[in-house]
Amino acid sequence: MLDYKLLEALSAVIDQGGFERGANYLGLTQSAVSQRIKLLEARLGQPVLVRSPTLGPTALGKRLLNHAQQVRLLEYDLIDIVPSLGTDEQRLRIALNADSLATWWPLAIGPFNQEHRVLLDLVVQDQTTALQRMRDGEVAACLCSTPRAVQGARVVSLGGMRYMAVATPRFIERHFPEGLNAESLSEAPGIVFGPDDRLHHRMVAQYHIAPPFPHHMCPSSQGVVQMTVAGLGYALLPEHQARPHLESGALVEIETPSPIIVPMYWHYWRQGGQLLSSLTSYLSEQSPNWLLSVEETERGSPTPL
Amino acid sequence: MLDYKLLEALSAVIDQGGFERGANYLGLTQSAVSQRIKLLEARLGQPVLVRSPTLGPTALGKRLLNHAQQVRLLEYDLIDIVPSLGTDEQRLRIALNADSLATWWPLAIGPFNQEHRVLLDLVVQDQTTALQRMRDGEVAACLCSTPRAVQGARVVSLGGMRYMAVATPRFIERHFPEGLNAESLSEAPGIVFGPDDRLHHRMVAQYHIAPPFPHHMCPSSQGVVQMTVAGLGYALLPEHQARPHLESGALVEIETPSPIIVPMYWHYWRQGGQLLSSLTSYLSEQSPNWLLSVEETERGSPTPL
Repeated sequence: MLDYKLLEALSAVIDQGGFERGANYLGLTQSAVSQRIKLLEARLGQPVLVRSPTLGPTALGKRLLNHAQQVRLLEYDLIDIVPSLGTDEQRLRIALNADSLATWWPLAIGPFNQEHRVLLDLVVQDQTTALQRMRDGEVAACLCSTPRAVQGARVVSLGGMRYMAVATPRFIERHFPEGLNAESLSEAPGIVFGPDDRLHHRMVAQYHIAPPFPHHMCPSSQGVVQMTVAGLGYALLPEHQARPHLESGALVEIETPSPIIVPMYWHYWRQGGQLLSSLTSYLSEQSPNWLLSVEETERGSPTPL
Repeated sequence: MLDYKLLEALSAVIDQGGFERGANYLGLTQSAVSQRIKLLEARLGQPVLVRSPTLGPTALGKRLLNHAQQVRLLEYDLIDIVPSLGTDEQRLRIALNADSLATWWPLAIGPFNQEHRVLLDLVVQDQTTALQRMRDGEVAACLCSTPRAVQGARVVSLGGMRYMAVATPRFIERHFPEGLNAESLSEAPGIVFGPDDRLHHRMVAQYHIAPPFPHHMCPSSQGVVQMTVAGLGYALLPEHQARPHLESGALVEIETPSPIIVPMYWHYWRQGGQLLSSLTSYLSEQSPNWLLSVEETERGSPTPL
């Protein structure tokens, strides 16, 4: 079998972001950690880490980290029988879209976390890279808008997030006095999360406008809200984020030809142990409190992010 | 002189995140864009792009993007005399810390943006990499907690952000019945932005606790707020973000031995043109409305992020 002490050194260095921090985390000296990683590389005959330009795992290193996380999840199922295993904190690494993390997801899993002590390593990912991380085994679960399961994983549909086009009353008066149309959209600045945020592009495409259209780029979910409130542009906000600002009158909804609904799928490792299964059941149970139902989402011609 | 058509192709491919999108942005075919980049590489005798693992500029490519952005900023100063130059949208690329972007910064610059039409490309960066991006010339300005200017740039102090340790009343009752101390802090889960977020480590170090201490990792400013409200852990939140939840009673402040104040410095290119100078003056003027004063920040033994 593999020497898990060596794998532990590798995960500590990667998770903590450096040799010194990894050593602190394990309560070892930096040279002990460095020796463990050298030994691991010598045994495997291949490097597990790249040092530059930034510290990161090699392809083999990623596979090993994945394996170590899976072993930890399986060990967690033994805690009832071997309580001493429980002294290690249980960690779960999950990739999710920025808007879910900034809105409903933490609130939905709050009670679960109070029952099962688990520390979360969350990773914000856009659509494409989130599933790549599942495929590479870097994360044990992933929340995104793609329905197709990756190999070794299962997927459940949780429902959908409704997005609303919004801006300040003053912005609307200035840029959209006649509502959204091809002319106003080629002039008014939008606020887009990043180059991989296609939601905005698809909304604009409904008006037969091809890029370029003027836009700010703001890779922060709450940053987009604040920029919209400050009148820098119009944006597509999740209903959860828009609601309080619509109620206070700071923002106004702009009518779009069809509702914008993004489906949410939960991908999780098939061999992820009891904890991951419980979290999955819990999320399926809770999601109707936070998301549009699966039926509504399907009826609403959902838009992948 | 350089052929700026070729540089424009390079920036479009990088900014838009791909050849197809870059071509759409410029209204060219993909093969025209690809030829321009090949021609640029042939003239310079060096590659400007790397294609894998992800599309990105080489070191030379970065220098050229920097140069192109600087030229655009200088062109902007000519618009009054040569209005036709104004048909190009003015873009400004700025790196800033996630907490400023999720709170005060967009609100502070809102009115400036309504006067000077400029599209923002914002980049969220932690401390170390933000200044590296200034050094590489990838961003024209950067908001971070380091006072030392990088070469070719100037820096102004804007004041400081106050952070508060907070949690739900229920979390405090369960984990901190006697307040913060070494014992409770080694058991209660904290919520940390990422491995480079040292603020939490420094707070914990005041109680003579060395890592590891239990923590979730959540790389989203608003995600940290939501996780705290959901009772997953305690966190250090900017006062702006904590305030509404303290008022509603959802969160309660936890007393710390000394106030946690993070200084904010604005770094900007010396040769950044009139627009960047105006933005800098505007921010200096406005920051007292949003931040602790420079004097208060200095008195409060500021903690770099």
